[in-house]
Amino acid sequence: KINGDRLWDSLMEMAKIGPGVRGGNNRQTVTDEDGEGRHLFRKWCEDAGMSMGVDQMGNMFMRHEGTDPDALPVYVGSHLDTQPTGGKYDGVLGVLAGLEIIRSLNDMKIKTKRPIVVTNWTNEEGTRFAPAMLSSGVFAGMHTQDWAYDREDAEGKKFGAELERIGWKGEEEVGDRKMHAFFELHIEQGPILEAEGKDIGVVTHGQGLSWTQVTVTGKESHTGSTPMPMRKNAGLGMARILELVDEIAWSHKPDAVGAAGHIDVYPNSRNVIPGKAVFTVDFRSPNLSVIQDMEKRLAEGAKKICDEMGLEVELEKVGGFDPVEFDKDCVKAVRDAAERLGYSHRDIISGAGHDACWINRTAPTAMVMCPCVDGLSHNEDEEISQEWATAGADVLFHAVVETAEI
Amino acid sequence: KINGDRLWDSLMEMAKIGPGVRGGNNRQTVTDEDGEGRHLFRKWCEDAGMSMGVDQMGNMFMRHEGTDPDALPVYVGSHLDTQPTGGKYDGVLGVLAGLEIIRSLNDMKIKTKRPIVVTNWTNEEGTRFAPAMLSSGVFAGMHTQDWAYDREDAEGKKFGAELERIGWKGEEEVGDRKMHAFFELHIEQGPILEAEGKDIGVVTHGQGLSWTQVTVTGKESHTGSTPMPMRKNAGLGMARILELVDEIAWSHKPDAVGAAGHIDVYPNSRNVIPGKAVFTVDFRSPNLSVIQDMEKRLAEGAKKICDEMGLEVELEKVGGFDPVEFDKDCVKAVRDAAERLGYSHRDIISGAGHDACWINRTAPTAMVMCPCVDGLSHNEDEEISQEWATAGADVLFHAVVETAEI
Ligand SMILES: NC(=O)NCCC(=O)O
Ligand SMILES: NC(=O)NCCC(=O)O
Repeated sequence: KINGDRLWDSLMEMAKIGPGVRGGNNRQTVTDEDGEGRHLFRKWCEDAGMSMGVDQMGNMFMRHEGTDPDALPVYVGSHLDTQPTGGKYDGVLGVLAGLEIIRSLNDMKIKTKRPIVVTNWTNEEGTRFAPAMLSSGVFAGMHTQDWAYDREDAEGKKFGAELERIGWKGEEEVGDRKMHAFFELHIEQGPILEAEGKDIGVVTHGQGLSWTQVTVTGKESHTGSTPMPMRKNAGLGMARILELVDEIAWSHKPDAVGAAGHIDVYPNSRNVIPGKAVFTVDFRSPNLSVIQDMEKRLAEGAKKICDEMGLEVELEKVGGFDPVEFDKDCVKAVRDAAERLGYSHRDIISGAGHDACWINRTAPTAMVMCPCVDGLSHNEDEEISQEWATAGADVLFHAVVETAEI
Repeated sequence: KINGDRLWDSLMEMAKIGPGVRGGNNRQTVTDEDGEGRHLFRKWCEDAGMSMGVDQMGNMFMRHEGTDPDALPVYVGSHLDTQPTGGKYDGVLGVLAGLEIIRSLNDMKIKTKRPIVVTNWTNEEGTRFAPAMLSSGVFAGMHTQDWAYDREDAEGKKFGAELERIGWKGEEEVGDRKMHAFFELHIEQGPILEAEGKDIGVVTHGQGLSWTQVTVTGKESHTGSTPMPMRKNAGLGMARILELVDEIAWSHKPDAVGAAGHIDVYPNSRNVIPGKAVFTVDFRSPNLSVIQDMEKRLAEGAKKICDEMGLEVELEKVGGFDPVEFDKDCVKAVRDAAERLGYSHRDIISGAGHDACWINRTAPTAMVMCPCVDGLSHNEDEEISQEWATAGADVLFHAVVETAEI
């Protein structure tokens, strides 16, 4: 078993970098705080005898040598970046549990045959730069690197320039590495495991996702002196589309969810009817045909709403991936580990997207989940217990070490 | 008659300060650009032989002496600040037409008995710091100066500190001046005069306004892994309230308007269900009981919507004034001037709020309106013809000079 206290201490130490305002974290991707978090992680890894590789997307690969250095390594990890008002565990747990595996192997003086590489994927959250899982996506060949470099944040800063600015653009070609397998531990971010009192989720599938950025264009004009029939209120058009998004998601209950987290109106002045509204609709389902149906109904419905109001509407897909089925052998390794260690477990579908969803396209992949309080995540109040973290890391340890062979 | 070419040239000259991105202006209150505009206006006034007074709200009073310096002056003016994506005429026309009156009197070597004071009121627009007409409001005793100084912009900067920073906090006590009368020329910002082919609107009344800032609080959580029934989506609650605002305004047709121009959601991240939405509802009517009814239905309806969704809602009134009836004698002076000059005219109710609405509480006041293309304002494409500007300034000139007596 791994050392749960040491893992917890490291989680608390990392959380000091980019603190939030309510006990969580604001360590968004390729900010100065992200750079600081990376330095701390690197130091810990080097203290544990690992060597660093960094690719041109800033993905960090910390290698622990195996007895057969030519064997394909087993990769394990997640992400250190957070939401603007995020928690201390989303992503971080998976990276630091990877490090804890190596520290525990060192304690036990055990060597695996295959090297183990602990990975920190850049920009998993996708808040500052859409889409989410950007760099594991480039690694898996889903996006080109040039396209990724051109992603812009709300201030118009580009991902590539920001990565260079914080000093974490590496030399390595992205995606050059071959993996024997990839494992990711993550908090559930949903309520199922806690509600059922299970220690471990054995992740068999991941929901698919579709992000559509909607731009509604009306006409800026005075809120006082523009008669009601002459208005082209882009904010009101947006409101009607938001209601439609909710309706569409409920119509596929319980197989779909939908909401808009990102909403901006222009010029955002109290006495100007919004001339433009830009917002991103997030639809998810474990079922590809459901996602396609939701996208279609959004496109048709938004057009109808806007036509009736004399508004223009444009839809652009800014992120997405199909539902994922993880590798049967890797999933079995996770399930067997939980069983062997005596942790209660159940199979589960991931509601969120993860780097593992992309890496699954290039290497056998699986995920381990642990519960989180009230299923709450993407919130500074996100919470887990040390016991849950320890159980998740134990299962990860066994699955990884078994796959890396002793 | 005034010199329409000179007035137009000055309008175009002023528009060079704080240019917009599409031919309009971004010269928001107490920014560096506002300071620059004030310096230019001051220089023009001093070149015309006027002397400056500035009060502690930054209101500028440019005095042209009368033959009886002890007689109560006639005041004339409007505002030089603009919306973030505003036009070149909203407010500016009224200030520069005041200056043009003095320049024309100088040309004609006419002296009025009463002094004429051309005024630039600070923060009429209310975009950066709510409420609108802030400084004429303090002048008229509607707000205290301390309260006004404490108003904050979206970045948390305070009005008082910003006024001091740009160097336009004067010494004069606010509201100390006594006025014989106040006149304001403004573009209509609505479609009526143009549609009816009238040169001049004789403003008899002003609509009342109510600004309610609504804060809907839900719970930030993951857009993917939070099941639909567990969501507390503050953005969806906001959408439903925006729809209600529209319904309420239409229900009083044609006596009311309603919309929200200001909308912010938090944390504004694509994969976080909004935990908070803050937006400002703008209701207007010439009828006080209609405004009160709309406020009441908003409060009740928002509470009902939020209760049903498990959301919290708070409403705060952040601006407002009752419908206004302008001074009969001043209104007559405007109507007589239009008649005498042979301009087509009609009585009109102002759809927008104006500094004149507050000053009307402390001095006999009236307004002159000229048409604007398509009734469009609070938009960079706001447009008027030189002929309209000239006609409006001619009528203002006659009304002011008649009231100031020769
Ligand atoms: N795990 C996680 O929150 N990833 C961000 C991508 C997503 O929105 O699912
Ligand atoms: N005239 C004008 O646009 N004033 C701003 C105050 C209002 O919103 O009516």
